Amino acid sequence: MTSLIDTLNWRYATKKMDASKSVPEDKVNRILEAIRLSASSSGLQPYQVIVVKNKALREQIVPHAWNQQQIVDGSHLLVFAAWDNYTEQRINTMFDLVNEERGFTNEGWEAYRQKILAAYPPRPAEVNYEHAARQAYIGLGTALIAAAEEGVDSTPMEGFDPEKVDEILGLKEKGLRSVILLPLGYRQEEGDWLVNLKKVRRTSSEFIHIMD
Amino acid sequence: MTSLIDTLNWRYATKKMDASKSVPEDKVNRILEAIRLSASSSGLQPYQVIVVKNKALREQIVPHAWNQQQIVDGSHLLVFAAWDNYTEQRINTMFDLVNEERGFTNEGWEAYRQKILAAYPPRPAEVNYEHAARQAYIGLGTALIAAAEEGVDSTPMEGFDPEKVDEILGLKEKGLRSVILLPLGYRQEEGDWLVNLKKVRRTSSEFIHIMD
Repeated sequence: MTSLIDTLNWRYATKKMDASKSVPEDKVNRILEAIRLSASSSGLQPYQVIVVKNKALREQIVPHAWNQQQIVDGSHLLVFAAWDNYTEQRINTMFDLVNEERGFTNEGWEAYRQKILAAYPPRPAEVNYEHAARQAYIGLGTALIAAAEEGVDSTPMEGFDPEKVDEILGLKEKGLRSVILLPLGYRQEEGDWLVNLKKVRRTSSEFIHIMD
Repeated sequence: MTSLIDTLNWRYATKKMDASKSVPEDKVNRILEAIRLSASSSGLQPYQVIVVKNKALREQIVPHAWNQQQIVDGSHLLVFAAWDNYTEQRINTMFDLVNEERGFTNEGWEAYRQKILAAYPPRPAEVNYEHAARQAYIGLGTALIAAAEEGVDSTPMEGFDPEKVDEILGLKEKGLRSVILLPLGYRQEEGDWLVNLKKVRRTSSEFIHIMD
């Protein structure tokens, strides 16, 4: 296995995927497992990952995503869909699961549950959705690394009409809102304008500030 | 090197750090480099990572962060601070850097610059800040993995008063807003209530939805 730095340098937002290649299911499963294990605020995991393999559905999404063909040329489309709100039920389900899995109830943990129950559900849904969406981005950070470690290309996309995608995938009824699209596939170097261009990042001295 | 899945299973939000141990600078530097290489929307990297080594500053932050002692017991505090807004200057600086590093100007890229310039600066600052903050969470996802790969413990924290932290670190004048704190250090198992508890995540069938 290569180093994380090499992995991050290898990946790029693939602009053209090879429609003749499919990502094997074991690779997809390891990518999904890595996302599932990612951290989230209070461990609530306030989002869902939809794996759209169905090509007809992916074809429907393309026109609502700036016609980005990676959505159909890749073999799997991951849709990160955040909770539209924090409800008592959603919070309790997660705290109950923790108790069940650990086999005991803890006073500190129960006090923390009450704190979250008092804080989140009364807030506007939009505030809660924004908070949930941020957590999905932690999962995205993981997914980009996990895919690259599997030698799988991916293209994180914010450029799409979330309401249309929600409609196509039936997310609204589930209390979910699509946040990011991430097609998985294999780069087709011919036709990809970005593949051979230098990855550009701000210098360390610009991006990082040390306070000694 | 262990697998990414093992790395993710090893890490946890460390509740007690050993104040007698320091993370070596080469490890910190690799963690920072991984964050710097992380993806961001349009490659804008709309955040900064502040590395607070100064203990007096960290001590000032503690009371504004629910008295979480990892901030001082760890050796380095990473503060992810998002741009408070997207300005023409910030956008142009990044697009110019890309041209400079790649050594040429590209018509498609310039058209994309105009699209971003037309879209972002006119939006309310709060919308832009939220978008920038999300990108910082991609970096957080990377940071959690990078630290764990180095055998370094970390504790992602949203529980703090951002305005106070901004004030202590002088972020407002720089057009930055603190989003996440991430102390780095080494776990002190004695006194850490979480270290031996099972990591709980929703099951795959709950968290992932396949659409064939």
